[in-house]
Amino acid sequence: MENNTSQDVNEMLPFILKRENVARYEDGAVHIFDRRRYPFERVFVSCPDVESVALAIETMVTQGGGPSIAAMYALAMEANRLSHRPADEIRAGLQAATTRLIHTRPTNTALARRLEAALQVANDALERQESVEAALLNWIEQRRTQSYVDYASTARYGADLISDGDGILTMCFAETAFILSLSMAWREGKRIQVFVPETRPYLQGARLTAPCIQELGIPVHLISDNMPAFVLSQGKVQKYFTAADLITLDGHVVNKIGTFQNAIAAHYHHVPYFAYCWGLDPHKPDRASIEVEERDASELRQCRGTPTTIAEIPAYYPAFDITPPHLVSGIITRLGVFSPFDLRNHFPL
Amino acid sequence: MENNTSQDVNEMLPFILKRENVARYEDGAVHIFDRRRYPFERVFVSCPDVESVALAIETMVTQGGGPSIAAMYALAMEANRLSHRPADEIRAGLQAATTRLIHTRPTNTALARRLEAALQVANDALERQESVEAALLNWIEQRRTQSYVDYASTARYGADLISDGDGILTMCFAETAFILSLSMAWREGKRIQVFVPETRPYLQGARLTAPCIQELGIPVHLISDNMPAFVLSQGKVQKYFTAADLITLDGHVVNKIGTFQNAIAAHYHHVPYFAYCWGLDPHKPDRASIEVEERDASELRQCRGTPTTIAEIPAYYPAFDITPPHLVSGIITRLGVFSPFDLRNHFPL
Repeated sequence: MENNTSQDVNEMLPFILKRENVARYEDGAVHIFDRRRYPFERVFVSCPDVESVALAIETMVTQGGGPSIAAMYALAMEANRLSHRPADEIRAGLQAATTRLIHTRPTNTALARRLEAALQVANDALERQESVEAALLNWIEQRRTQSYVDYASTARYGADLISDGDGILTMCFAETAFILSLSMAWREGKRIQVFVPETRPYLQGARLTAPCIQELGIPVHLISDNMPAFVLSQGKVQKYFTAADLITLDGHVVNKIGTFQNAIAAHYHHVPYFAYCWGLDPHKPDRASIEVEERDASELRQCRGTPTTIAEIPAYYPAFDITPPHLVSGIITRLGVFSPFDLRNHFPL
Repeated sequence: MENNTSQDVNEMLPFILKRENVARYEDGAVHIFDRRRYPFERVFVSCPDVESVALAIETMVTQGGGPSIAAMYALAMEANRLSHRPADEIRAGLQAATTRLIHTRPTNTALARRLEAALQVANDALERQESVEAALLNWIEQRRTQSYVDYASTARYGADLISDGDGILTMCFAETAFILSLSMAWREGKRIQVFVPETRPYLQGARLTAPCIQELGIPVHLISDNMPAFVLSQGKVQKYFTAADLITLDGHVVNKIGTFQNAIAAHYHHVPYFAYCWGLDPHKPDRASIEVEERDASELRQCRGTPTTIAEIPAYYPAFDITPPHLVSGIITRLGVFSPFDLRNHFPL
């Protein structure tokens, strides 16, 4: 697998993780695959301007790695719209777009760092008096190609942690590197099965993770979010893997709400927990620096539009939680599997 | 509160826990309050025979303490139907009804013990050549009156565990004694707030517990089943209370799936866990003697009829879990709060 190309990786992935199915920039609009309607429908949401991309991210049309890609394309689209304006206006317009897009999801700061890098690319092109849209699109495609190469090396480290016969617990939708790890382990003949908590209220586990794993032919069982500890107690789980929306410099893992209590339950049952990591944010040194997004409580009183209780009942909806480093057995990166306490020394900022 | 009568207690309870609203025996039929449709509607399911009561219990029309009451009335209804038959036929018919009703829910053996006691009452009446229906109804009403007196003493012990300012976590629908404990603590001026996990897939937390607590005017927040550990980590919870479908003689607490992982998370955060107990089953000595009900996996692929994923996805649905005694700080009974390790010595079998 060491020589995986972006194309090789793409072929191993289930439908919704294939490069062309996350988000596309076509005909002057950003087309975002609607993960809210999958697996019931396979449709894209067309966003003709920055605001509609921002709203799509806020309303969870895409999630995980999707918002960064949609937001970068939104910047290219804005560059195109502003292309006949003076350089100052283009610069100001792209800055305003970046600010709007960053504010869509406060917890995962990768989106902010990606957009700030994109803004630099745009400003460099402006200085060279080149097409900003073309410079951005060229940079985005290079980044996306590189990201699939990185997915492959990261997934390789993840797959090596999986043993023949393992039961695997996950949470939410750990996306490409995790799904690719499973795909590699399975192709190598390791007999595995995966337990997927549904991940209320948005059901990313039920709607995204479980169908992706099933599409690859790997045995999978959907469970509800109150079941992981009992499944662990039955000896059905040997490894726990999740993505991470953010990992602080001192090794705290921020991920979808529920990740933390599964990590406590895994630790109680002597099952190791591994989180996938894409990079560190130098502005996030520790737990105190984390902003946990609180979403509208009304989202918790329904399930795919069906009310789960009456509207009068107050609800509380923190969207993420924080797992302290002593509950984390390893952080899986493209460079290797590191201790959360030592990550910052091995993994470049 | 020491002199609480059944009527006093009834007045302190929210709508669905009032004696007349759990189940009634009227006009030769058992009318069971439909907890599946609450809080959206307040309707009863009318069951004209034993089989329809059994089906109502199996399909979760009622739960918690409800099945025992509905099943006892079903036995009285069957006695009425058989009243003109020879004693042997009545005896055999009531035995068959008992067997059918016991098999509705295998985990909570209180139902079986209650029905076996009822069968004894019926057989005694037969021997005395008295009306079996009248004997059963008389016994049932006496038992129900006594149960509200027991609720009051149990709830008193629970309320004393609650301190002013406490945040309280629960799971599923811990029913009368728990709700009554909250009601007592609140009336005594203790400022409390309650966090209620929704309890997928049946949403007993969202539909039953949260509306009951809100009806009493006590601050309540609905959360999803993946949030308890994070809410605990925020310092918002000081006590964790649940019911128990079964407690083994050696102190293992069997309750709705999710109870166990909340207990692990509470223990991790140094928050005590208390379970309410109604009695011990001498045939359930230990963990190995517990039968955990597995329900139809298709129930896990929907939420109030709305699909949460596609029908092809396999699911696993254990309905209960098992919390070992070292995670339990106390068992609340009508006689006091006991250590789970010592319960069998204080609480009569």
